[in-house]
Amino acid sequence: MAATPEAGAARKLYLEDLSVGDRFRSGDHALDAAQIKAFASQFDPQPFHTDEEAAKATFFGGLAASGWHTAALTMKLLVESGVPLADGIIGSGGQLQWPKPTRPGDVLHVVSEVAEITPSRSKPGRAMVTMHCQTLNQHGDVLQDFRPKLVVHARPS
Amino acid sequence: MAATPEAGAARKLYLEDLSVGDRFRSGDHALDAAQIKAFASQFDPQPFHTDEEAAKATFFGGLAASGWHTAALTMKLLVESGVPLADGIIGSGGQLQWPKPTRPGDVLHVVSEVAEITPSRSKPGRAMVTMHCQTLNQHGDVLQDFRPKLVVHARPS
Repeated sequence: MAATPEAGAARKLYLEDLSVGDRFRSGDHALDAAQIKAFASQFDPQPFHTDEEAAKATFFGGLAASGWHTAALTMKLLVESGVPLADGIIGSGGQLQWPKPTRPGDVLHVVSEVAEITPSRSKPGRAMVTMHCQTLNQHGDVLQDFRPKLVVHARPS
Repeated sequence: MAATPEAGAARKLYLEDLSVGDRFRSGDHALDAAQIKAFASQFDPQPFHTDEEAAKATFFGGLAASGWHTAALTMKLLVESGVPLADGIIGSGGQLQWPKPTRPGDVLHVVSEVAEITPSRSKPGRAMVTMHCQTLNQHGDVLQDFRPKLVVHARPS
């Protein structure tokens, strides 16, 4: 069952509602230099994330968002409009990649697909669901590729 | 060469200064409920991260930090006192896990070890360095396990 964004956002999904291949598209988040510098000053105070001028002489060649800022905004989009799981989005981690830097002016959205569903052996009514979540900008560039393992519960009986 | 925390914090390291097995210990960050709720309200607005009372009835059984908050604080510790790379800590991603929730009152620090050094085939003077970074609380519980791949440059000639 491929959920449309509209249907997905309106419903609250339990384990029974998910199938491998289901896809979800989040809303958008517009990022600017002020947000990039505010996050970085708190959590990743390196010149390529905090200072346009200093960033020019670095590996990034200009201001770029902290990868953790891209990750945090991805989570915000997933929670608010991405994957409407009834018990919330509870992840234990996963493989995380940032193929390209996130830049001021990027408008982010997240496309998520159910990649694998592994029922718990010890806990009935629970499964580990691996999602594949790609964070893209308005040009279709993939800025983050994340394969989180989520704990998903069945509908209460 | 195993760098002591003091030596590590004072120096700025290039590729030549790193060997597999080198270890670094960051300073500490004390986390409280206010910080947890402030981060979550911006990036991960789910009841188990934003509301002590509501959190009790959830999977977490009480307030827990967003995993992305743990990750962002880990980056702050790495940048400020963790691994003193001369050109900064530039990661392309890695395997990320949160074995236990981070709780109010946890005092975090990060222990990092150089796991693998792979010289670039195409770019002389550059290597991909895989670190193993564990974020622990004051009880020694591992709250995050991250194996980032970092871009590290040789000393300019």
